Amino acid sequence: MGAQTSQNRRPFIDRLVEGMERVGSPICVGLDPVLEKLPEAVRAEHWEPPAAIEAFCVGVVDAVAGIAPVVKLQAACFERYGAAGVRVLEHVGAHARGRGMLVLLDAKRGDIGISAEHYAAAAVGLHADAITVSGYMGPSTIEPYLNAGLGVFVLVRTSNPDSDVVQGGEMKGGGTVAGMMAGVVAELGKRWMGSGRGLSSVGAVVGATKAADGRMLRERMPGQVFLVPGYGAQGGTAEDVRTLLRPGFAGLGDAGVLVTASRSVIYAGGEGDWKGAVRGAAERLSREIAAVF
Amino acid sequence: MGAQTSQNRRPFIDRLVEGMERVGSPICVGLDPVLEKLPEAVRAEHWEPPAAIEAFCVGVVDAVAGIAPVVKLQAACFERYGAAGVRVLEHVGAHARGRGMLVLLDAKRGDIGISAEHYAAAAVGLHADAITVSGYMGPSTIEPYLNAGLGVFVLVRTSNPDSDVVQGGEMKGGGTVAGMMAGVVAELGKRWMGSGRGLSSVGAVVGATKAADGRMLRERMPGQVFLVPGYGAQGGTAEDVRTLLRPGFAGLGDAGVLVTASRSVIYAGGEGDWKGAVRGAAERLSREIAAVF
Repeated sequence: MGAQTSQNRRPFIDRLVEGMERVGSPICVGLDPVLEKLPEAVRAEHWEPPAAIEAFCVGVVDAVAGIAPVVKLQAACFERYGAAGVRVLEHVGAHARGRGMLVLLDAKRGDIGISAEHYAAAAVGLHADAITVSGYMGPSTIEPYLNAGLGVFVLVRTSNPDSDVVQGGEMKGGGTVAGMMAGVVAELGKRWMGSGRGLSSVGAVVGATKAADGRMLRERMPGQVFLVPGYGAQGGTAEDVRTLLRPGFAGLGDAGVLVTASRSVIYAGGEGDWKGAVRGAAERLSREIAAVF
Repeated sequence: MGAQTSQNRRPFIDRLVEGMERVGSPICVGLDPVLEKLPEAVRAEHWEPPAAIEAFCVGVVDAVAGIAPVVKLQAACFERYGAAGVRVLEHVGAHARGRGMLVLLDAKRGDIGISAEHYAAAAVGLHADAITVSGYMGPSTIEPYLNAGLGVFVLVRTSNPDSDVVQGGEMKGGGTVAGMMAGVVAELGKRWMGSGRGLSSVGAVVGATKAADGRMLRERMPGQVFLVPGYGAQGGTAEDVRTLLRPGFAGLGDAGVLVTASRSVIYAGGEGDWKGAVRGAAERLSREIAAVF
């Protein structure tokens, strides 16, 4: 625990860059476990849903360790099982940490400062290194997570089709609501820079499916790592990811993207060696994204 | 349980109006329990934090039942204790329901449709009748809660000081980001109207401290109940609440506000009869707000 604690004192962004460079690819595997989609072998062995989900997630973590530096846990999929699900979330987080991975809690929390402090404490208790947050209530609602030692990825331009309704709204001074949020993120990020490389522990969620906005968002957020959903299954391409890179980056460690994929990796398995299939899918993703650089 | 189930089939807004009329005041008591602030008597009896919080919340619910039709549970305060905290959240929700109160889960969730479905299932499991949500990711991220039979209160104009940074941003077509969100809420709300009274199960969070925007927001959201934080402790006045009322309302049931107070009520007690003090504070709030009409 001593080593774990001192590791946590280093800025999240430094640990993220190091993790990406160690495995040689800036990818994240998203765990959005849904009972009906689990391999038959897992369901046969664990008939209680939370136990089946835990066994599955532990298996996926073992399969992708050393390939993906980050695992993203979709809080909703666990919370739907109440207290039992939260216990699983904690176990999976601990297991991923034990395998040397960074844990990103995809919880999209957004509340006033004092409540954010509680959410941050909850995330730390679940072994999270970083968390996704909403900035709609203002910058002071984001800072408590940083004060607790977590990295954050703020929702800016999400990959779901109807995010345009709000995030695409045009602002009086030019640009969109997403562009305005990008400005808030960049400003806040300046106070949470890592050591060198010009990157911040304050990142942003920017979908690969919204690459048309990518150049503008990169211009407004030069120091942010973009957590990029939407690659592959949702239609985002390697070319889309390329538009999101930081100009003049030296390598994948400072290129400013963390590409995340969930279903295409975790449900890659058939009924035979499902963990091998998951590992294979993660390796394919890793190669595809490494080729972007 | 049969009665409970059939009650849940009626639109949330109808149950809310009925509850407000039954007790004669449109108020909500917010449970944001923090260990250090609990009465000494509670802490002495329960040294495990989750147990102390449960005992306190059950006591507050008993004290305000029959005065406030709605209790609002701040999810963060419970989640910080992990699985044990979620179990307390479930117990408190069940207890409040058993006392005939509506349960509003203040979770400010906001995620894509499939994740929102999981969050909605989680909220139903916690005995929630309604939930606070963020609409930043678009209207399709709000609908799953409604499909699950929950009412929603969408963040529009929150009471915290720095909400202006985002929500006060000026839009090209006139109005603010909050005004734009109000339009999204009003449009979605039309598909979830209750029986008569012109009110929807889609409500909005509009802080009493932002009453300067109140008239504009009421114009854009004629069919929404406003969940109004910020009254009292944060500086919002009865006059501020008055600016948020629906024009031409017939009584408190269709006036379109649900005023919520937390600390000023739940921590009203000294070290003697703390439940009596909480009840007294809820009664005062009830009278003050009833006088607005």
